[in-house]
Amino acid sequence: MIKIGIIGISGYSGATALELLSGHPEVRVTYVSANNTTGKVDDIWPYLAGKTNLVCRKLDIKQAAAKCDLVFLAVPHTVSLTLTPRFLKAGVQVIDLSGDYRLNSPSQYKKWYGSVHSDVKHLKTAVYGLPELYREDIKKARLIANPGCYPTAALLALAPMVSTQGQWIESIIIDAKSGVSGAGRKASVALNYCEANENFRAYKVLNHQHAPEIDLYLSKIASRPMRVDFVPHLLPVNRGILETIYIKTNQKFGLSAIHQIYKRFYKTGTNRCKIGLAHNSNGNLFVITSVIDNLIKGAAGQAVQNMNIMRGFKETTGLL
Amino acid sequence: MIKIGIIGISGYSGATALELLSGHPEVRVTYVSANNTTGKVDDIWPYLAGKTNLVCRKLDIKQAAAKCDLVFLAVPHTVSLTLTPRFLKAGVQVIDLSGDYRLNSPSQYKKWYGSVHSDVKHLKTAVYGLPELYREDIKKARLIANPGCYPTAALLALAPMVSTQGQWIESIIIDAKSGVSGAGRKASVALNYCEANENFRAYKVLNHQHAPEIDLYLSKIASRPMRVDFVPHLLPVNRGILETIYIKTNQKFGLSAIHQIYKRFYKTGTNRCKIGLAHNSNGNLFVITSVIDNLIKGAAGQAVQNMNIMRGFKETTGLL
Amino acid sequence: MIKIGIIGISGYSGATALELLSGHPEVRVTYVSANNTTGKVDDIWPYLAGKTNLVCRKLDIKQAAAKCDLVFLAVPHTVSLTLTPRFLKAGVQVIDLSGDYRLNSPSQYKKWYGSVHSDVKHLKTAVYGLPELYREDIKKARLIANPGCYPTAALLALAPMVSTQGQWIESIIIDAKSGVSGAGRKASVALNYCEANENFRAYKVLNHQHAPEIDLYLSKIASRPMRVDFVPHLLPVNRGILETIYIKTNQKFGLSAIHQIYKRFYKTGTNRCKIGLAHNSNGNLFVITSVIDNLIKGAAGQAVQNMNIMRGFKETTGLL
Amino acid sequence: MIKIGIIGISGYSGATALELLSGHPEVRVTYVSANNTTGKVDDIWPYLAGKTNLVCRKLDIKQAAAKCDLVFLAVPHTVSLTLTPRFLKAGVQVIDLSGDYRLNSPSQYKKWYGSVHSDVKHLKTAVYGLPELYREDIKKARLIANPGCYPTAALLALAPMVSTQGQWIESIIIDAKSGVSGAGRKASVALNYCEANENFRAYKVLNHQHAPEIDLYLSKIASRPMRVDFVPHLLPVNRGILETIYIKTNQKFGLSAIHQIYKRFYKTGTNRCKIGLAHNSNGNLFVITSVIDNLIKGAAGQAVQNMNIMRGFKETTGLL
Repeated sequence: MIKIGIIGISGYSGATALELLSGHPEVRVTYVSANNTTGKVDDIWPYLAGKTNLVCRKLDIKQAAAKCDLVFLAVPHTVSLTLTPRFLKAGVQVIDLSGDYRLNSPSQYKKWYGSVHSDVKHLKTAVYGLPELYREDIKKARLIANPGCYPTAALLALAPMVSTQGQWIESIIIDAKSGVSGAGRKASVALNYCEANENFRAYKVLNHQHAPEIDLYLSKIASRPMRVDFVPHLLPVNRGILETIYIKTNQKFGLSAIHQIYKRFYKTGTNRCKIGLAHNSNGNLFVITSVIDNLIKGAAGQAVQNMNIMRGFKETTGLL
Repeated sequence: MIKIGIIGISGYSGATALELLSGHPEVRVTYVSANNTTGKVDDIWPYLAGKTNLVCRKLDIKQAAAKCDLVFLAVPHTVSLTLTPRFLKAGVQVIDLSGDYRLNSPSQYKKWYGSVHSDVKHLKTAVYGLPELYREDIKKARLIANPGCYPTAALLALAPMVSTQGQWIESIIIDAKSGVSGAGRKASVALNYCEANENFRAYKVLNHQHAPEIDLYLSKIASRPMRVDFVPHLLPVNRGILETIYIKTNQKFGLSAIHQIYKRFYKTGTNRCKIGLAHNSNGNLFVITSVIDNLIKGAAGQAVQNMNIMRGFKETTGLL
Repeated sequence: MIKIGIIGISGYSGATALELLSGHPEVRVTYVSANNTTGKVDDIWPYLAGKTNLVCRKLDIKQAAAKCDLVFLAVPHTVSLTLTPRFLKAGVQVIDLSGDYRLNSPSQYKKWYGSVHSDVKHLKTAVYGLPELYREDIKKARLIANPGCYPTAALLALAPMVSTQGQWIESIIIDAKSGVSGAGRKASVALNYCEANENFRAYKVLNHQHAPEIDLYLSKIASRPMRVDFVPHLLPVNRGILETIYIKTNQKFGLSAIHQIYKRFYKTGTNRCKIGLAHNSNGNLFVITSVIDNLIKGAAGQAVQNMNIMRGFKETTGLL
Repeated sequence: MIKIGIIGISGYSGATALELLSGHPEVRVTYVSANNTTGKVDDIWPYLAGKTNLVCRKLDIKQAAAKCDLVFLAVPHTVSLTLTPRFLKAGVQVIDLSGDYRLNSPSQYKKWYGSVHSDVKHLKTAVYGLPELYREDIKKARLIANPGCYPTAALLALAPMVSTQGQWIESIIIDAKSGVSGAGRKASVALNYCEANENFRAYKVLNHQHAPEIDLYLSKIASRPMRVDFVPHLLPVNRGILETIYIKTNQKFGLSAIHQIYKRFYKTGTNRCKIGLAHNSNGNLFVITSVIDNLIKGAAGQAVQNMNIMRGFKETTGLL
């Protein structure tokens, strides 16, 4: 029975992690904290009533480190930068759900997240926690950079094509739509019910911080430089991401050939990212639809999957 | 052409007032302000593009008073208390959309709004702006207390019965449901899309500040003390209020008799509050459903109606 | 391992029953059917993918009876009337989710459901499946009338008061609000997204078929005639019921006394119906809020709970 | 005062047309009909109360023709085919909101709408009612094919580029999202609240009947063959279309150059289609967002605009 801490329990990802872990037979959540909320967790999250007796306190790293073997950091970016080195130093494994350790270059981090990366040492050694691609590295990792929600849906949908047919790909456009929980749980007029309801809008057009994350790992998968055009939109639903992905090739493919490529890549199937395929009559444009739950496969569920791999549990424990 | 100011243009009521007044042939909006937002109004509210060239500034009362004959105060309660005396002193008429001048007793104000009433002088002379009941007083008013959204729907639905059959009424229960815009436009986790969407909840059960407002004016209408039991709920829609009102009588009434009472009271009909009637087989319980748009008849529209009456315009100008 | 059939798998209740039973260790679903839909169940309900390999066919009662020990009838009322006697005759236990066996008098059935009751024999022997009240009878039942969604929330909220303090109760008003799935899954303009979204309405005011169901069982609980005034409304959410219940007493109660009454009645708590309490300053009006998931405790979950009791399983198996 | 008929008043487009025309000073609606609904129009559409006294009857073409100078056909496709020739023969002008007269080739119609075009004569002479492009033809038209909602947003967004820079365009991808009213008002489980709410899906991927309509008119505008890749999605909102359009060019453009192209094309601005622009750092991919109200500019409003042009009224009459 390993001991788990969740830092940032008042957010959606933190709460979802607790919800999943409360049914996990191999772990026990022994510590939870939040920055601006304290008290019994089932008062903060009534839907968790009966699943937890934990009390949320303001973070005390020393105490947290003493009580935990592994922590989930469900905190805003830049906050992870200050917590991660201290947990690692205390011998606690870290799964970071923020964007702080995903881009491997400090200058890219500065460009997209707007502040200097203060922990370059661990930035270099963090493992990108996309199990379908990096399972072996995850097994040995002490620090996991849990992938962003948009990149998870994009990379799972694109990996089979770019890893095997990268040379024929001319361009990739990702038109992404996310439910409102993807924006996190914070007081903000822009996220108010009356602003998001009966509304739909594009934002950060061709300028979202998840685009370089997709480019980075897609290039690794393809073993050649890849660049996508990425446009996110805000959907009036609580949860879920759908990405409509347009791949233009300079070689014609039949739809059945593409189906084969995907089946071969995901031998056993990845049961939590639904991928659909279509192509135009010219045979040079493929449309992939990729759907995930942004809080499960796009955040807390993938974090639990990473934890399972790190600790040698069956990969799906606590997730079915 | 009279000159109008709107204080609090960044809220829903203020914006709706501007929307209505921009189509009003007898007035011109000459001044708008907000506390935390500045800039072109059609940048703040893109849906008003083409209807206004106004620029929003932080409030300067002196300037506002110089530019306006009448102001709409679409500000939180307690703020009106500080603005109203100064506008009145400068000779500017005031229509206050907050709750600051609705309860006629300072102690009741203290009890329900939690702070001392600092302008008792005007509290005593303010006119309650429910035109269907107080048209004559409104004509001569310099300060209007624009009714709350819940009381508007309740009083219009109840006035015919209590004014004519008050002696037979045993109890009144109001089960009220409001869209989220009724809570105003402010940064708050509780109002976030993900918290209000797919949700429905009762709040301030038997303890809402609109209950004493209903009691006060219902008692005046009935010429006897009346007390309602009032339970509000938050509906996952942007706009609208529906109140289901249960009147228990100790005298049996036929449904057609009740219909007669309502028709006679609202001779020409009140076209913006829809009232439905039903009764149980015993004939001693009536159910009234009362529906308004909380931002129009429940706030900005009623304010415009009051303005029309105060300035001698046709009552419906700008409202159809 | 007992064998279960679900008749009406294309509706929300049928699908929810399958979802719950697919995780139940003591039973196996061996037969599913629907009237107008056929094919693989996970094509009809993609969210059940991975949980079932069943194929849905048009109902063949003989085949169903041969394959099942117990059937869930998730069909419209009047349809159950024709199926129930045939399943019972074949020795198959029946849990009927329709309204066909809830009212114990044929004339009441005729009045509220609009057609003659053709199976009076079983109407007399059916057991009302509200475990919190009729656990012992359910153990021995061959035919369960699974309670309506509104009555479930109402009876659980009212049972403690009426069973112990019935003599002081003067009147009960139930203002009920239900999500759209409560109306079933059928092609209907009135249930279209654009009609229900951003909308809220009362319907069948004081005239809903669940009112006599509530009256009947409330009277049994109270051992005296009880009659409620019941007004349902349609909420723009997928799932869930909230009932705001107003109990007027001719005796004053303190809130803590009421809390005691409820705690004593539900010794161990009923974990799937959330009940809140408030009272007015006179002490003679109590407001109870009662919340359930209409598809779980209000339909399929309660059916599974009844099945567990009938077959001697732990009552909560498959439900946590 | 010209006399107008609306055929198909029970649908969203028909009702919106009546709503707009009820405020139009130059016309009077003299006849309305529907196929499956009859009775007072304000019973069918309570939100039109006070705006109309019309009674809806089953269509009688002879009577309709006698009472009207011009009719709006807000009926499903194929129905217009049978009505249009008869109205035209009776000397009544027709604005057809269905898809029946938009594609200029009978074989294309057969391919995309699934049935033989039975009125080829008028198919050849119908004028495509997109005023921004075909104002002069509309002035003289007797039969208008009112554009589809998706093509309206697409063509307005693309016309400036393709008409002036068509030679540099390599590919166009349209990722379109529509509110549910775009599917019309019909009884259908797929359109039920519970199916569309909290949901979002792609449909008819690369296979929607509006794609050839876009191709046809885009090719005319460009004076060269153009083909778009078009993927529509269903948004959980009542109204509105947002299209995210990706134009790949084999020539680099600066963003300000593109802005110039759009400003020059729409000299006075088109105030009911909001167009946004962005481009990638390579300068060879432009992203255009195009937003309309599908029931106004995408259907009934554009029909009124066409009527105004046909009858020589100011183009915006009844639309502001």
